[in-house]
Amino acid sequence: MTIQVLNGANLGRLGTREPEVYGTTTHAELVQLIEAAAAELGLDVVVRQTDSEGELLGWVHDATDAGDPVVINPGGWSHTSVVLRDALAAVPAPVVEVHISNVHTREPFRHHSYVSAVADGVIVGLGVQGYELALRHLAARGAR
Amino acid sequence: MTIQVLNGANLGRLGTREPEVYGTTTHAELVQLIEAAAAELGLDVVVRQTDSEGELLGWVHDATDAGDPVVINPGGWSHTSVVLRDALAAVPAPVVEVHISNVHTREPFRHHSYVSAVADGVIVGLGVQGYELALRHLAARGAR
Amino acid sequence: MTIQVLNGANLGRLGTREPEVYGTTTHAELVQLIEAAAAELGLDVVVRQTDSEGELLGWVHDATDAGDPVVINPGGWSHTSVVLRDALAAVPAPVVEVHISNVHTREPFRHHSYVSAVADGVIVGLGVQGYELALRHLAARGAR
Amino acid sequence: MTIQVLNGANLGRLGTREPEVYGTTTHAELVQLIEAAAAELGLDVVVRQTDSEGELLGWVHDATDAGDPVVINPGGWSHTSVVLRDALAAVPAPVVEVHISNVHTREPFRHHSYVSAVADGVIVGLGVQGYELALRHLAARGAR
Amino acid sequence: MTIQVLNGANLGRLGTREPEVYGTTTHAELVQLIEAAAAELGLDVVVRQTDSEGELLGWVHDATDAGDPVVINPGGWSHTSVVLRDALAAVPAPVVEVHISNVHTREPFRHHSYVSAVADGVIVGLGVQGYELALRHLAARGAR
Amino acid sequence: MTIQVLNGANLGRLGTREPEVYGTTTHAELVQLIEAAAAELGLDVVVRQTDSEGELLGWVHDATDAGDPVVINPGGWSHTSVVLRDALAAVPAPVVEVHISNVHTREPFRHHSYVSAVADGVIVGLGVQGYELALRHLAARGAR
Amino acid sequence: MTIQVLNGANLGRLGTREPEVYGTTTHAELVQLIEAAAAELGLDVVVRQTDSEGELLGWVHDATDAGDPVVINPGGWSHTSVVLRDALAAVPAPVVEVHISNVHTREPFRHHSYVSAVADGVIVGLGVQGYELALRHLAARGAR
Amino acid sequence: MTIQVLNGANLGRLGTREPEVYGTTTHAELVQLIEAAAAELGLDVVVRQTDSEGELLGWVHDATDAGDPVVINPGGWSHTSVVLRDALAAVPAPVVEVHISNVHTREPFRHHSYVSAVADGVIVGLGVQGYELALRHLAARGAR
Amino acid sequence: MTIQVLNGANLGRLGTREPEVYGTTTHAELVQLIEAAAAELGLDVVVRQTDSEGELLGWVHDATDAGDPVVINPGGWSHTSVVLRDALAAVPAPVVEVHISNVHTREPFRHHSYVSAVADGVIVGLGVQGYELALRHLAARGAR
Amino acid sequence: MTIQVLNGANLGRLGTREPEVYGTTTHAELVQLIEAAAAELGLDVVVRQTDSEGELLGWVHDATDAGDPVVINPGGWSHTSVVLRDALAAVPAPVVEVHISNVHTREPFRHHSYVSAVADGVIVGLGVQGYELALRHLAARGAR
Amino acid sequence: MTIQVLNGANLGRLGTREPEVYGTTTHAELVQLIEAAAAELGLDVVVRQTDSEGELLGWVHDATDAGDPVVINPGGWSHTSVVLRDALAAVPAPVVEVHISNVHTREPFRHHSYVSAVADGVIVGLGVQGYELALRHLAARGAR
Amino acid sequence: MTIQVLNGANLGRLGTREPEVYGTTTHAELVQLIEAAAAELGLDVVVRQTDSEGELLGWVHDATDAGDPVVINPGGWSHTSVVLRDALAAVPAPVVEVHISNVHTREPFRHHSYVSAVADGVIVGLGVQGYELALRHLAARGAR
Repeated sequence: MTIQVLNGANLGRLGTREPEVYGTTTHAELVQLIEAAAAELGLDVVVRQTDSEGELLGWVHDATDAGDPVVINPGGWSHTSVVLRDALAAVPAPVVEVHISNVHTREPFRHHSYVSAVADGVIVGLGVQGYELALRHLAARGAR
Repeated sequence: MTIQVLNGANLGRLGTREPEVYGTTTHAELVQLIEAAAAELGLDVVVRQTDSEGELLGWVHDATDAGDPVVINPGGWSHTSVVLRDALAAVPAPVVEVHISNVHTREPFRHHSYVSAVADGVIVGLGVQGYELALRHLAARGAR
Repeated sequence: MTIQVLNGANLGRLGTREPEVYGTTTHAELVQLIEAAAAELGLDVVVRQTDSEGELLGWVHDATDAGDPVVINPGGWSHTSVVLRDALAAVPAPVVEVHISNVHTREPFRHHSYVSAVADGVIVGLGVQGYELALRHLAARGAR
Repeated sequence: MTIQVLNGANLGRLGTREPEVYGTTTHAELVQLIEAAAAELGLDVVVRQTDSEGELLGWVHDATDAGDPVVINPGGWSHTSVVLRDALAAVPAPVVEVHISNVHTREPFRHHSYVSAVADGVIVGLGVQGYELALRHLAARGAR
Repeated sequence: MTIQVLNGANLGRLGTREPEVYGTTTHAELVQLIEAAAAELGLDVVVRQTDSEGELLGWVHDATDAGDPVVINPGGWSHTSVVLRDALAAVPAPVVEVHISNVHTREPFRHHSYVSAVADGVIVGLGVQGYELALRHLAARGAR
Repeated sequence: MTIQVLNGANLGRLGTREPEVYGTTTHAELVQLIEAAAAELGLDVVVRQTDSEGELLGWVHDATDAGDPVVINPGGWSHTSVVLRDALAAVPAPVVEVHISNVHTREPFRHHSYVSAVADGVIVGLGVQGYELALRHLAARGAR
Repeated sequence: MTIQVLNGANLGRLGTREPEVYGTTTHAELVQLIEAAAAELGLDVVVRQTDSEGELLGWVHDATDAGDPVVINPGGWSHTSVVLRDALAAVPAPVVEVHISNVHTREPFRHHSYVSAVADGVIVGLGVQGYELALRHLAARGAR
Repeated sequence: MTIQVLNGANLGRLGTREPEVYGTTTHAELVQLIEAAAAELGLDVVVRQTDSEGELLGWVHDATDAGDPVVINPGGWSHTSVVLRDALAAVPAPVVEVHISNVHTREPFRHHSYVSAVADGVIVGLGVQGYELALRHLAARGAR
Repeated sequence: MTIQVLNGANLGRLGTREPEVYGTTTHAELVQLIEAAAAELGLDVVVRQTDSEGELLGWVHDATDAGDPVVINPGGWSHTSVVLRDALAAVPAPVVEVHISNVHTREPFRHHSYVSAVADGVIVGLGVQGYELALRHLAARGAR
Repeated sequence: MTIQVLNGANLGRLGTREPEVYGTTTHAELVQLIEAAAAELGLDVVVRQTDSEGELLGWVHDATDAGDPVVINPGGWSHTSVVLRDALAAVPAPVVEVHISNVHTREPFRHHSYVSAVADGVIVGLGVQGYELALRHLAARGAR
Repeated sequence: MTIQVLNGANLGRLGTREPEVYGTTTHAELVQLIEAAAAELGLDVVVRQTDSEGELLGWVHDATDAGDPVVINPGGWSHTSVVLRDALAAVPAPVVEVHISNVHTREPFRHHSYVSAVADGVIVGLGVQGYELALRHLAARGAR
Repeated sequence: MTIQVLNGANLGRLGTREPEVYGTTTHAELVQLIEAAAAELGLDVVVRQTDSEGELLGWVHDATDAGDPVVINPGGWSHTSVVLRDALAAVPAPVVEVHISNVHTREPFRHHSYVSAVADGVIVGLGVQGYELALRHLAARGAR
């Protein structure tokens, strides 16, 4: 079993896009952080990012077939994508949604996420550490 | 003239995704059902599915150029995609929207479809038979 | 078993009331079309129309007692009648809601139907052929 | 040509029901007032009242067939009956909606009338004289 | 003085329609229960049921003329009928609204009743015993 | 006592502005029509028009001081002017609001009028004859 | 088993606070009325009142532990307190909500109660007798 | 520096109240879990629970004065308490909001929290482990 | 420096317009009251009233240029005039908004004021004394 | 007669909590300011603060019994507490609501106060001087 | 043909009112810029500004009579004035709406303009150059 | 520096799709028009179109890295795409949004654009000339 860490649109721009909101860690550094945390917890992990909704759906379908848990940061699609919600609703393993910034202190259209209602849990506003905490939760549930 | 049967996001997962909602027919079996129904009615038909919104728009544009009727199940895009609506509004031949499940008995965000207002008709909740009924309607309108 | 085709308020005016919306088929002709389609499919059918909500409720109650499937076009009551919804919710056999015009392209108050949430399926905007397609659906479910 | 003056639910109770709102004229006296005004204007008139929505629809259908103008006070159905709106939309002759009380100074649910959008004009809050003024309008339009 | 117990649409189906919601007591049994409770309290009572809104209005008008108290379960009309509200607003004697099921735990459209604002009191969700408690309230007010 | 007929913004453009909506009668002709009707009814009348809200308020204040009845067509201010409402609320004599077109068949922002709730009655959609009918109502109330 | 009758904020002011709304019975007299009714029905009852939300939660928790039925008049907390709703949702025995006045005829913010959706039934507007009727309902369910 | 873990209304009932939603861990066990996690992370921690809003405000004021970080599960007050939000807004150290269940899959009134907009981060739906993950986040920020 | 006391539409009617709401003090008397209070506080003051929005804008522009504080009662324009808000937003000296009546106990459209968000403070419902208290506040801020 | 100055939740934190919003005066200094102002005006005054809603209700009940006027700053409860509104509605003497900051320039949920509709007047955004101005108003009304 | 450049309320304050929003160009300089641009494009132009809604309506009526194109910046009236919309709807020549600042990044009440729906086009947020670009558009349409 | 002119979904269909709305200029002709205008203004320009949201995001990211100004017509994505908004928010150079048709005269769902709040300016309804005017604005800001 491999934990699928899936990052959506614009997250490849981490570190340079609005650093006052998202911090200065780049996506490449984020991948290293996540892999290190997984190694410490004895978890298999793959981290991927895409700006294509269709590609993201495909990854979710693959995780569904493989029975893999999913840690997902859908970026702006959280607020608009019913198809992403529908794909995630079929994942049999646990799903944890992560947002780096505290979306509840930003514009109203970021306060609702279609994904939250089909996730097992949500971590918001704890920075890039949110990914590590999501892995810890999966480890505690036995995702090893 | 060829009837374009276009299935949107997640419909490639038919038969395994939420079978209690969508039934156990797979997409491959659905294609066979539709082709058989078309043959019986003397209609040319092509069935395609995609998880990429851009690819779906391209198919709608092709149908527009060819003057082909369209049977479309946009899946979750029904509820969010203005660009799909705009593309379908330009189709000169009849357009029938199909939903396998009865979206009106599900979450409120599924009760409105951008596509319905530019379709000629809508068939909701009759299972995969909805596709066959849509073909029958097009046959009755002379789409042969 | 007899399929109850029940038409609500104003549908007796078919053919003369707003023909640009509802077409030129009269209600008498509609009855013949439905009976012919039923005969071809080997189905027993009765077609009735009323402008009295109470009478319509009585017919739904009778269908409930007899175990008869229902094809219903509630007309404008679709959008306002909770009592009709409540009566239909008790029908043990399949219920198909039919609207001749595409209500989704008309005024907003026609976009919601109390009946859809208790029907098995809905056919919208396919003209008077919608009744025939509803019968075909019932035939396919074994309503013979 | 005969002008159809149609009064809806509860208007048979005029004079005794909430006289501080509707005045003390009884329905029988109202009929006399309307007939006298019609006679003075050289108009044929029939005044009817019903508490049955279905019966009211039938009268509107009859007026549609006869080409008769309609003066209608739908009472509380103004605010809830889509089927009445649909029936009135088919009347080829002028339709004038009358309310005895000023509905805009009462509860919010009385501020909207489904009928107003299919009427030619509306007279609100001028008491039972509203009927006479509606007849004058029809006379001026040549309804004689 | 006779207490008018008036049941609206679909309540004649008690005991068979959605018994998990409304219980298994039939309407005939309900009439007996109410008559027995009235006898014990020394009250005159009449129990009637109708699926015709116009007929129900007529009964309310009769109660208004006779000065009779009213116990009313309007069924689904509670949520849609302004004309029923208007008729009840004229009843000079006390009016108690009864709902067998707890409408506040059901669909949102059942949470509002036009009737509640013109009733003296409302009893919700106490099963068929609600009718007996309504009679007790009327007895305590001196409706004997 | 003199009846004050007060026309608001843009009504000086009658006959040329959107004649398909407001008709071809000019404001000068409207003044003549109103004066003729008043003469026939034995009423004193003054007709004025202004595009200045402040001037209109002044006229309403004058009518308040003089005890004059008011027939007012506020034009677009109906939908936006609280100060006009406040001024009219102080008029001790009857106030009748007139709209030439049927505002209920036009844009939603024309469906609500601040003035209606402080008027005695409202006449909508009966063309320029609406003014004459308003005068007749005032005559019947004894405004002579 | 003891029936817990719990009164919320401001109800200790009964008889002096807004007597035109709540009547002139004081809280002490209400306690006597409830105890007398319970005695007649053979029920054990305790009546308490508090202006502290936390204290009320504690009493509900105690009733949950003891398996006691609850008759609750939450006063103004009905409309604002989610924590009260959450506490009551855990009560295993029946819960009846009582309001002395008819909240549906008062300000809109009193029309919704968080408590109603977790109660078994609701009695509104029958004055202080509402408490007695609630006891009768519990007696009929066997709460003895 | 001591981390203040503050639990609001009804959380003392953990383990027995709606265990299918909140799990079977009692509050006493939760305290042990949190203390063990803190010890492992080298953090000072105090865990408290109250059903009194005023007491909770006091604890938040104390944490403000001491400069202590706060982990808070406000329970149902999340959705209704502006005063709690105001108190938390003054805390100079980090604040993490925790919800045991996934509030986004429950009733709509649980989807909004006043607290989220003044917290640094939010953890939802990860069970009682959410508290441990919150501590880890504070440890990573140097709250030692 | 001169304090500009600016009264908007209809305030010239003070004392006669709805005295049960606004009291019996006339505008001339109000001017005297304000001048007396200013004299006592050692403040220069000018009091003006207009029914012309444009004239009021001009006075606000003059106060902006002169650096004068403003006490403004915009009357009904409070609720509708964005241009007044925009003009007041540019005033560099303090602005205090005054309403004679308690607008929060009146119609809902009076509960929001565009002006409040650009004023330094608001005094509502304290009668004509509100003007004097506003002057006191300006005196305390050193507007002398 | 003693004027009750009652401060609600978090106001004990004045001077340290968000001083850029509420200023640097502490609650102890506020008490002195109010007592000094009262002495100058010849008024008896008591100033109290609590974070317990129940305690605040008790003080309001006491003021009701004593016939004392109330100056109240409910803090965040202004926006959420129906029970506070209900308690204040019973105070026979004048009630003035005070807010130190201009709530209309802050978050939308602070724009509405349940208390305003039962207060005689409201003073917003004039800093701690608002309390003194409220006392002046009470003095002018004869509260001595 | 002369292009009418019409500026509404507060625009005479350009350069001094909120320069961080509207820039430092004064209205006199704006007139010169527009006249220079018109000269370069070979267009006749007149630039006017008013704080009186009635005067602005008059100018629009004059443009309607003359067949002149209109470039209009209605300022705050954009968001509130139905009468301005009605006047502009009658202009037979092209109408271009200009806003100096990007209204979509400001308060929500500035996001909707009554004028946009009757203009041919809208230019937002391009500073005072917006006027020049509007002239270029009119030149390209042949307004010379 | 090169100006990136980016056209979204369906704009490749210009000239054939709904020409009564968008005109008869094809996308190839539009490219020529834009290139000619850029040449005249001495600007470097690249024009691209895509039906893939992901591809469009990539182009915006490239413009962000290169510091290129952007002229964007997002088509239907304007109204639904938060990810596009997020990408554009990071562009350091000016962004101008262009719509060929006047979206404010079309369906309500086209009245709001997520992009407008992160653009520097917006040009609506001036046909394909809108692109040229956007270039002129960039030239005036020194984008050469």
